[in-house]
Amino acid sequence: MTTRIDKATLMVLSNRALARAGLSPEHAETTSQVLVQGDMMGIPTHGVIRLTPYTERLKHGGVNPKAIPKIDQRAPSLCIVDGQNALGPVVANAALCQAIEMVKETGIAYVGCRSSNHLGAMVPYALQACQAGFVMLSGTSASTTMPPWGGAEARIGNNPMCFAAACPKEPHIILDMAMSVAARGKIRGAQAAGQAIPEGWAVDKTGKPTTDASEALEGFLVAVGGHKGSGLSMAIDVLSGVLSGAKFLTGITSWVGNNDTAQELGHFFILIDPARLIGKENYEAAMNEFCEIVHTTPAADPVTPVILPGEREQTRIADALAHGIELNVKVLEDVRRLAGEID
Amino acid sequence: MTTRIDKATLMVLSNRALARAGLSPEHAETTSQVLVQGDMMGIPTHGVIRLTPYTERLKHGGVNPKAIPKIDQRAPSLCIVDGQNALGPVVANAALCQAIEMVKETGIAYVGCRSSNHLGAMVPYALQACQAGFVMLSGTSASTTMPPWGGAEARIGNNPMCFAAACPKEPHIILDMAMSVAARGKIRGAQAAGQAIPEGWAVDKTGKPTTDASEALEGFLVAVGGHKGSGLSMAIDVLSGVLSGAKFLTGITSWVGNNDTAQELGHFFILIDPARLIGKENYEAAMNEFCEIVHTTPAADPVTPVILPGEREQTRIADALAHGIELNVKVLEDVRRLAGEID
Repeated sequence: MTTRIDKATLMVLSNRALARAGLSPEHAETTSQVLVQGDMMGIPTHGVIRLTPYTERLKHGGVNPKAIPKIDQRAPSLCIVDGQNALGPVVANAALCQAIEMVKETGIAYVGCRSSNHLGAMVPYALQACQAGFVMLSGTSASTTMPPWGGAEARIGNNPMCFAAACPKEPHIILDMAMSVAARGKIRGAQAAGQAIPEGWAVDKTGKPTTDASEALEGFLVAVGGHKGSGLSMAIDVLSGVLSGAKFLTGITSWVGNNDTAQELGHFFILIDPARLIGKENYEAAMNEFCEIVHTTPAADPVTPVILPGEREQTRIADALAHGIELNVKVLEDVRRLAGEID
Repeated sequence: MTTRIDKATLMVLSNRALARAGLSPEHAETTSQVLVQGDMMGIPTHGVIRLTPYTERLKHGGVNPKAIPKIDQRAPSLCIVDGQNALGPVVANAALCQAIEMVKETGIAYVGCRSSNHLGAMVPYALQACQAGFVMLSGTSASTTMPPWGGAEARIGNNPMCFAAACPKEPHIILDMAMSVAARGKIRGAQAAGQAIPEGWAVDKTGKPTTDASEALEGFLVAVGGHKGSGLSMAIDVLSGVLSGAKFLTGITSWVGNNDTAQELGHFFILIDPARLIGKENYEAAMNEFCEIVHTTPAADPVTPVILPGEREQTRIADALAHGIELNVKVLEDVRRLAGEID
């Protein structure tokens, strides 16, 4: 069952919940922006539902509420942000802001994050980069849940990657994808709801296909394209974990049942300034043409027009602003409880 | 039927074939290196078999044998190489060499290519970047052969992307992947051999699944992970085509039946210097640990140990150097003919 809540009210609740867990107003605001946008974009698995594990970890020492990320510029276009075990959105936002400053100098910038935590969905960061006019490549490591191609033990993460390209007219192109056929959060949701999962989402711990959510959570997610998804996951881990000096692969601690242990996740943001390459006008004309070519593709099913990556999420923002953010009733109750509004 | 030929002999034949099509010795050598390495790595679809279409295009004006790529540095870390319609390996090699120079300055560099052509396999370039100690992200656009997700007309290319990370001990990590479940070249090979293709590789021109190679070539390749592969293809096209000022999406001319028309393909190379980020020793230790974790994963099938992306291709190089390069007899005959050794 869902309800609707306006953005300002949800932001206040989220900020209060985070403040009660020890966060500064500034860090609470940054984190709430990311989570509330997740819900606005129709990504409830990465919305305010995360306030429960976030605040648990803040209270039990798995995340440090008082941490201030340290920025270490290593070269004209390279930087490492040491998150000091702050919440992921706090670290990632510091990194993205740093990347936006650096890209103006040399035209491209890489900022890696270490000692970080779950950063929410990637789309809010991508939207920020697009609104500033840039092209972005980013990703984050995650605890290991999948075997590498041909393996029978979880040694790679279902690492999300994101590509974004600013368009002169919204929607921007924003591809946010994890490497598995389905997200682990969706399997957790099915388990919580007592539902089966579709075939092809996961295998059990012995490597056999399963539609049982609990068996799947004890087993492994299945990677997109076999060796391709497996290799992409490693690529994102090198860019996020190795290059930033964070942990990687099995070095990352799972956050399940480890509320008092730092995960030491890594992320990365690469920004490119398209205006410095081909000029702002040429770039905008090209992106308009690009989007037009995609949008005018004859649809396989006429009822479902062809859309751009991330278009649906961006359309939902306008809907959420106009009609309120759709939220699971129980999730909202949890948020109110965390904010101290109810016992 | 295959035969074996030593590298030096094949290089001489390839260089002669290209010289007879008007290429300078330097450009012939660059191109032969890429194609011969393709065969050495066990990627015969991107080996000297390409000398036939390459020389056809050189002779009919689709590619300019005398072109010299123009290098235009746009910002401290950004550069565009205008290929002037030279052969793809000539343009891509100029871009990679430029990226290797630029990355030393600022720690990361983007080099885009425009007015280019088919560049062969990505792995030879990746190997060069790895041997210089860098992390590489690259890709190339291709003529449109797939519909975007939900579409029924080919408007995106099966654009290959590549990620490579230098390892202190070979093999380096080299992921070279196109967006489709299977490569179009493999379907062409099946058609030439009169064989059916496996289910799931392609759909016919009405969007229905097919195992007929000819029907598949009239229809569309199927993208990995549905909307994910479709979105990744667009990402590679923006990075290769839009940012370099090349053509993109349906603006690219197919090379099939168009030997006299420039394709205007785009490519890109992003190099990162890991030593500038975390120090050479830390990076090498991390990559050794990374590879060890992957290699020691229990295998689903004990007969097939878990390997790194690109490991098989790199192992084959040693085999080809020791025992000769395995080549299809007919392909070698074509090369000898192009080189003027036989009529």
